Amino acid sequence: MTVDAQILSAFRRAGPDGVSGADLATRLGISRAAVWARIEDLRKLGYDISASPHQGYRLLASPDLLHADDLLARMSGDQIIGRDIRVFEETTSTNDVAEKLARDGVKEGVVVFAESQTKGRGRMGRRWVSPSKRGLWFSILLRPPLRPQACTQMTVAAATALVRAIERQTGLKPSIKWPNDILFNGRKAAGILTELAADSDSIRHLIVGIGLDVNVAQDEFPPDVRSVATSLRAELGRPIDRPALAAVLLEELDRDYARICRGGFPALADEWEQRCLTVGQRVTVDLGVRQIEGRAESLDDDGALLLRTEHGRLERILGGDVTIVKR
Amino acid sequence: MTVDAQILSAFRRAGPDGVSGADLATRLGISRAAVWARIEDLRKLGYDISASPHQGYRLLASPDLLHADDLLARMSGDQIIGRDIRVFEETTSTNDVAEKLARDGVKEGVVVFAESQTKGRGRMGRRWVSPSKRGLWFSILLRPPLRPQACTQMTVAAATALVRAIERQTGLKPSIKWPNDILFNGRKAAGILTELAADSDSIRHLIVGIGLDVNVAQDEFPPDVRSVATSLRAELGRPIDRPALAAVLLEELDRDYARICRGGFPALADEWEQRCLTVGQRVTVDLGVRQIEGRAESLDDDGALLLRTEHGRLERILGGDVTIVKR
Repeated sequence: MTVDAQILSAFRRAGPDGVSGADLATRLGISRAAVWARIEDLRKLGYDISASPHQGYRLLASPDLLHADDLLARMSGDQIIGRDIRVFEETTSTNDVAEKLARDGVKEGVVVFAESQTKGRGRMGRRWVSPSKRGLWFSILLRPPLRPQACTQMTVAAATALVRAIERQTGLKPSIKWPNDILFNGRKAAGILTELAADSDSIRHLIVGIGLDVNVAQDEFPPDVRSVATSLRAELGRPIDRPALAAVLLEELDRDYARICRGGFPALADEWEQRCLTVGQRVTVDLGVRQIEGRAESLDDDGALLLRTEHGRLERILGGDVTIVKR
Repeated sequence: MTVDAQILSAFRRAGPDGVSGADLATRLGISRAAVWARIEDLRKLGYDISASPHQGYRLLASPDLLHADDLLARMSGDQIIGRDIRVFEETTSTNDVAEKLARDGVKEGVVVFAESQTKGRGRMGRRWVSPSKRGLWFSILLRPPLRPQACTQMTVAAATALVRAIERQTGLKPSIKWPNDILFNGRKAAGILTELAADSDSIRHLIVGIGLDVNVAQDEFPPDVRSVATSLRAELGRPIDRPALAAVLLEELDRDYARICRGGFPALADEWEQRCLTVGQRVTVDLGVRQIEGRAESLDDDGALLLRTEHGRLERILGGDVTIVKR
């Protein structure tokens, strides 16, 4: 951890009790003047830090800002996802940055956040609008010991982790539409784009891109998606602490990633099915070349949706656009 | 086509009749002196071209050399695979070069040959030895309209095309071991490494790397594979014309690629099964994490091997090492 991360971590652990400059200096092995200089820099970033002779330093408030050191300070430290965090003010697409890191041989677990994306993208080449500081737009580089066919497992894991993190931080109850949409009453609040490089036997790397509309106001969505998009803020009626949510999100994602790497996908699939709107419904799937209609029955071991057609045949659906048929 | 490719193409069409310098100059829209200069350059590369006042120019013999213009001249011109051919004297791995072209946005169908590879690789990170000018070491960049799960289709298509091309050019009868080995009496003569970049819905690009031991002498194989490796030359008892084989190979690959893009994989799978040692046999599959034993029954629509285990369950095998169980 960097010095800044250690300072913020110490503040958070101490809470209202505060921590003295002398203690911090000893713990970090630097001078009290150096501690003071770091704290001045954190104040400039917007961290509200009080200092008193009796209580020492206390963190009163954090800015609405993604700061790698702060995110690291909020996490347990033994996770894979988030052991390396990089925050960009603006980028084309965080998936592009993660792809470049992958090719440079960077270890798995690195997370790339951007406060805004100029070319954010969703599934099937669709645009993903990412207004500055309104959401969590990020990508995770992973190198799972899985066959390429199992990449849907990671999409399912990410959807489940997203739902759990949102519940923990807000109390909201989102649902999942297969394979990767997070919805509130039919309106989409998050999407997941999984990209991979593989040979026919194994995944070389996999990038999970997540776009979560946290504090986006309804009029910030482009007109063409306004009626089908929502944000956590819109659902909750108040703004959400983005950095706190980001840290919880990375924790939950790390937990589910560990599960699928240990072969624990079946249990995760059960959890997913409980949150999922799609299973049990009559759906049509647009595969581009053809459409299939049937009843969504469950997930298989690769995360594929098993669809019972009207002829009684079981089809494995691994991609495509799913629409729930209204009766 | 380049001027050199047009000249070589004209020579091949004319055969022993020859073609006059005046004809060539008119056809290519260049001077007779320019024709002569191009022919001098081709002679320097090793093309044996005779010139006589009566018969004009005749191509008597071609060098044992992969020359992009010559390969283009040997092909029909309306194919996707091979419409752009690049030959390197030496490279790390032709798959690496094709990967770079893919990222640069090069159109599908480009074929990268290398006379030798310093870091040729096979499946599961294995080394592929590529002695200079002894084989066909090449990679094809494709952008098929397929889901990532269907990438095994292309491996199966490539294996079938390889077998057909070898038969056409040499009369030899190789067999296939699932999914991608070309064998003669249990000894491997060729391998296929399929690598892909995709999202969970569709393939962004796919690279088919092929290593075919054409004229490799037995003592040129590393000691550890000598007893299980062979070459077309060893099987036939005489050297093979590599450029002629390369052109036929690209034609057959293009034919099978067109078939799978049109949804014609089932017919191709039937052809593959007739050539395949694996189907109908009792096999063990090493999946890294576990081993499965069963009877290889057939291929499914994605090119997966369907394995009937002793419990009667049908397992879909998409990767791994297959060994035929000897009785």
